[in-house]
Amino acid sequence: MPRVTEDHLAARRRQILDGARRCFARYGYESATVRRLEQTIGLSRGAIFHHFRDKDTLFFELAREDAERMAEVASREGLIQVMRDLLAAPDQFDWLTTRLEIARKLRNDPAFHRGWADRSAELSEATAQRLQRQKQAGRLRDDVPAEVLQTYLDLVLDGLVARLASGDDPVRLSAVLDLVEASVRQQ
Amino acid sequence: MPRVTEDHLAARRRQILDGARRCFARYGYESATVRRLEQTIGLSRGAIFHHFRDKDTLFFELAREDAERMAEVASREGLIQVMRDLLAAPDQFDWLTTRLEIARKLRNDPAFHRGWADRSAELSEATAQRLQRQKQAGRLRDDVPAEVLQTYLDLVLDGLVARLASGDDPVRLSAVLDLVEASVRQQ
Repeated sequence: MPRVTEDHLAARRRQILDGARRCFARYGYESATVRRLEQTIGLSRGAIFHHFRDKDTLFFELAREDAERMAEVASREGLIQVMRDLLAAPDQFDWLTTRLEIARKLRNDPAFHRGWADRSAELSEATAQRLQRQKQAGRLRDDVPAEVLQTYLDLVLDGLVARLASGDDPVRLSAVLDLVEASVRQQ
Repeated sequence: MPRVTEDHLAARRRQILDGARRCFARYGYESATVRRLEQTIGLSRGAIFHHFRDKDTLFFELAREDAERMAEVASREGLIQVMRDLLAAPDQFDWLTTRLEIARKLRNDPAFHRGWADRSAELSEATAQRLQRQKQAGRLRDDVPAEVLQTYLDLVLDGLVARLASGDDPVRLSAVLDLVEASVRQQ
């Protein structure tokens, strides 16, 4: 493929993803209709779905981008640092809220659940490996299985998103993360 | 008011609330339309809204009933026991999911936020008082302010609901609650 066409394709994909993220953030997962996606992205549905099969494929690709970025931080500095970064990015709260809005669909729609899990796998893997390394270095409490610690951190991440989405004070939530961090450490 | 009319009124209110709870549980907060409320409750909108002003008033009354029941448990046995009770009631998971679905509305709609907070106040109060008593009895860690512990427990409650709503294993989540319980105790 000639270079100019590749660049053009990449730019078009970027335009679609950025617009879709704004649309989901603004309207929420369910209410981000194809009509609204067209308006926010500035392209016709034909052009959009030429690049991404459907609304869910678009949504999963955004989740995958998030997971990739979060996995980099989780791998180096742990999942709690990922959460501290979320606290520091209030412009992302609207988008984060979509994580809560899909819970019912995750439970009731197996194909959607698989799609979401596939895209989030990178973050889970990075968190698991980091916990493993911390454990070997003797920095992790050893009276609780690593899987339980990982589920705990996943639960705290969802709880944090829920509190942010509902309008809780980030400063108070930051103090909570200190407590969470201490509670997974070797005492 | 004659006794028979009072009884009739109470039964009618009960019918409406039980039907509305099923409707919200099944369709989610946004998709529980007035049409669907009529069908699930088995009464016309005229009859329903004679007893409750609008959909939000109905929803808040259900939230108030929850908060009242949870506050009784929280007052005697703490908020973690409330969460253990949730884990043991899978038939409630669909209804619980509505707690997540209103996050965006809580943040963006001040009147809705006030209505919700008013109805949840009883639970917050019961949790605060129980934490106070536990602290006085020396059972609570004293290196972290009680408000931070309360925010932590609120966050864990929301996280737990999110994980249950997404289909996580209740047994694994129960082990997480053991860890949470230990992390608020005096070591």
